[in-house]
Amino acid sequence: MTKRKVLLAQGGGPTAVINESLVGAVLKSREYDDIDAVYGAFHGVSGIVSEDFINLSLESSENLENVAKTPCSALGSTRDKPDEKYCQEIFKVLKAHDIGTFCYIGGNDSSDTLRILAEEAISADYALRCVHIPKTIDNDLTVNDHTPGYPSAAKFVASAFAGVNQDNRALSGVYIGVVMGRHAGFLTAASALGRKFDDDGPHLIYLPERSFSMDSFISDVKAANDKYGRCVVAVSEGIHDETGEPIVTKLAKEVEKDAHGNVQLSGTGALADLLCDSVRDGTGLKRVRGDTFGYLQRSFLGCVSDVDQREARAVGEVAAAHAHDGDRDGTVTIHRTGEGASYGTEYKLSKLEDVAGKTKVMADEFIADSNSDITDAFVTYLKPLLGSDMPDTHRLEAGRVEKILAE
Amino acid sequence: MTKRKVLLAQGGGPTAVINESLVGAVLKSREYDDIDAVYGAFHGVSGIVSEDFINLSLESSENLENVAKTPCSALGSTRDKPDEKYCQEIFKVLKAHDIGTFCYIGGNDSSDTLRILAEEAISADYALRCVHIPKTIDNDLTVNDHTPGYPSAAKFVASAFAGVNQDNRALSGVYIGVVMGRHAGFLTAASALGRKFDDDGPHLIYLPERSFSMDSFISDVKAANDKYGRCVVAVSEGIHDETGEPIVTKLAKEVEKDAHGNVQLSGTGALADLLCDSVRDGTGLKRVRGDTFGYLQRSFLGCVSDVDQREARAVGEVAAAHAHDGDRDGTVTIHRTGEGASYGTEYKLSKLEDVAGKTKVMADEFIADSNSDITDAFVTYLKPLLGSDMPDTHRLEAGRVEKILAE
Repeated sequence: MTKRKVLLAQGGGPTAVINESLVGAVLKSREYDDIDAVYGAFHGVSGIVSEDFINLSLESSENLENVAKTPCSALGSTRDKPDEKYCQEIFKVLKAHDIGTFCYIGGNDSSDTLRILAEEAISADYALRCVHIPKTIDNDLTVNDHTPGYPSAAKFVASAFAGVNQDNRALSGVYIGVVMGRHAGFLTAASALGRKFDDDGPHLIYLPERSFSMDSFISDVKAANDKYGRCVVAVSEGIHDETGEPIVTKLAKEVEKDAHGNVQLSGTGALADLLCDSVRDGTGLKRVRGDTFGYLQRSFLGCVSDVDQREARAVGEVAAAHAHDGDRDGTVTIHRTGEGASYGTEYKLSKLEDVAGKTKVMADEFIADSNSDITDAFVTYLKPLLGSDMPDTHRLEAGRVEKILAE
Repeated sequence: MTKRKVLLAQGGGPTAVINESLVGAVLKSREYDDIDAVYGAFHGVSGIVSEDFINLSLESSENLENVAKTPCSALGSTRDKPDEKYCQEIFKVLKAHDIGTFCYIGGNDSSDTLRILAEEAISADYALRCVHIPKTIDNDLTVNDHTPGYPSAAKFVASAFAGVNQDNRALSGVYIGVVMGRHAGFLTAASALGRKFDDDGPHLIYLPERSFSMDSFISDVKAANDKYGRCVVAVSEGIHDETGEPIVTKLAKEVEKDAHGNVQLSGTGALADLLCDSVRDGTGLKRVRGDTFGYLQRSFLGCVSDVDQREARAVGEVAAAHAHDGDRDGTVTIHRTGEGASYGTEYKLSKLEDVAGKTKVMADEFIADSNSDITDAFVTYLKPLLGSDMPDTHRLEAGRVEKILAE
């Protein structure tokens, strides 16, 4: 048997640790004598068709370690989803370069791309080992306990809300922060991990797992503001009415869709502005502010969970090992082996079709009955993922001075 | 002479290190035997009128050190600006509690509040030592080389742009990030410190020190996109046309103003969305995304410059020392004593009226002739302020694989 090559690529939205997985797969693959070279394709499957490869066998370990610590797909990404003809183009290039293994780092769209490719390879009688390496800040891959990229993004969201809660305490008003998450509310729910004291925000959390009612929202905000003298709200960009129509498209002038048919939700402040206007009109409250966390959530330099870094590295290594030693295609999945201080994970090779194109949403046990908060079970679930250095907030504790003039 | 009390308060927008200054002033004041107690007023001058005090002499040093590391005014803040009657109310309370010293941590509005209070105290024949402690993420205080709070916010902005530049490399398009800064562009300019490689964004930077032309903006974006195949833009929220009218008010439905007469610029995504729409319409480019960094810039938990922390602590200490040992009111100012590796600062007591209510903007030498970038002189100015642990980005370096199929 001739030595063949391993090809790696990255698809979909970047994460803070996606390059850990890349580097894990590169370094592991380089351990095997019977692998001719490790290539990377630029911009996912689109870079295969255009023969746009880099020889990762020639990268120094030192530089690879530096790249691992850099956020966002070092190889670039794509939203392309290949059809049969696209697959034929891919096989032509893979054959020319004698590539026998393809590991694709991505979310549910990228895993579906790999499923299609694996099926077409069989039809085309092209010997190709396909292994999917999970990543997504949305945490919405089935089978997995959680997905690399999510813990770091969750740490960003929790840190952001811990901070804006302090800001809102200093200068009170209503604050609405819009968080990424089309169908799954995991990232929005992470806002709750920014709380420490009983009256800390976010006081309200709205997830795409539940229908959003503008009337309930306004009365919730009013009630929270009456109680706390201020109100911090976390809202998922994917909130929708009871018919499933996203709240943001109710006012969007034109709707932009990607190759996977997804409506554009990020990169616009429209939802936050709409919600702020509704609160102002509906409550009469004056100081109402809205922020859309946007692309910072998945790319911010310097906010990363060390647990996430290690796990992202591991899934890359495990994928390379399965690709080399295993006898079937699949997707590497993460499974939790312990809670709290005993937190741990193990990695398995699951079937591509069990993950590909599917979406996991938050379990009912993670969502409070009020539909505007999360449960303690969710805090228990997320806490160990945030890593060892999640910062903390503190308050002045000394008592108030007795008033002399006022009665 | 009877022992009198020291009163501390915080005004205006919070920063990541404003509590370092508070704690510096508390701990320094507690060193003096002839000070009866150190009080804090909640929500700035408004907490004086309402006699809402905390006895900071009773706080443990341990908790004070924890609070120092927590972002955003631990005492709360206010945008109130007292008139003569308001000042009389203040003196009534100060007299009742035998307060002889007032140190107010804030920006140019808060320093103006202190100037008014100091003048009214003389008219009212109330013996009050007034010392202003500088803070503002806008970096717009006169006399000062820079102001506490700015370096940490600048680190946030630089880290954010370093990240979104990576994101934009992975999935190309036009990205517009709107940064805080009404009149001064220092914080927006900090985006340039996120660059490392020649083709890194932000490729365009628009500051409120220059008039903004929508036509030039669109042709600049088009040119950058033609050159780099993508375009990252940093824009100050305060950009305005040649008449001085803010670009954002050109489409705002209603304009909100604070007690100082400032139009609301933050807490809305309107400017980013307007600019994105203009780029789409003007260039025909499809993937155009806009984020407004919002309140995260000044409050994000865990993004802080250690240089900023130390300097914020120092201005609090120096203010307390001047208040105790000095013979005049004033504002503590920061002066640079060396550049690069020799970077250092010294602190002086300057006149309140030299800083109060005044605004410093970026010097011409910091702004490129193109009006859409900053100069190397600005990079030299800002770099030492970002502290010892500003993270870095790295790229894959190995060469491209020679194409076999494509000619």
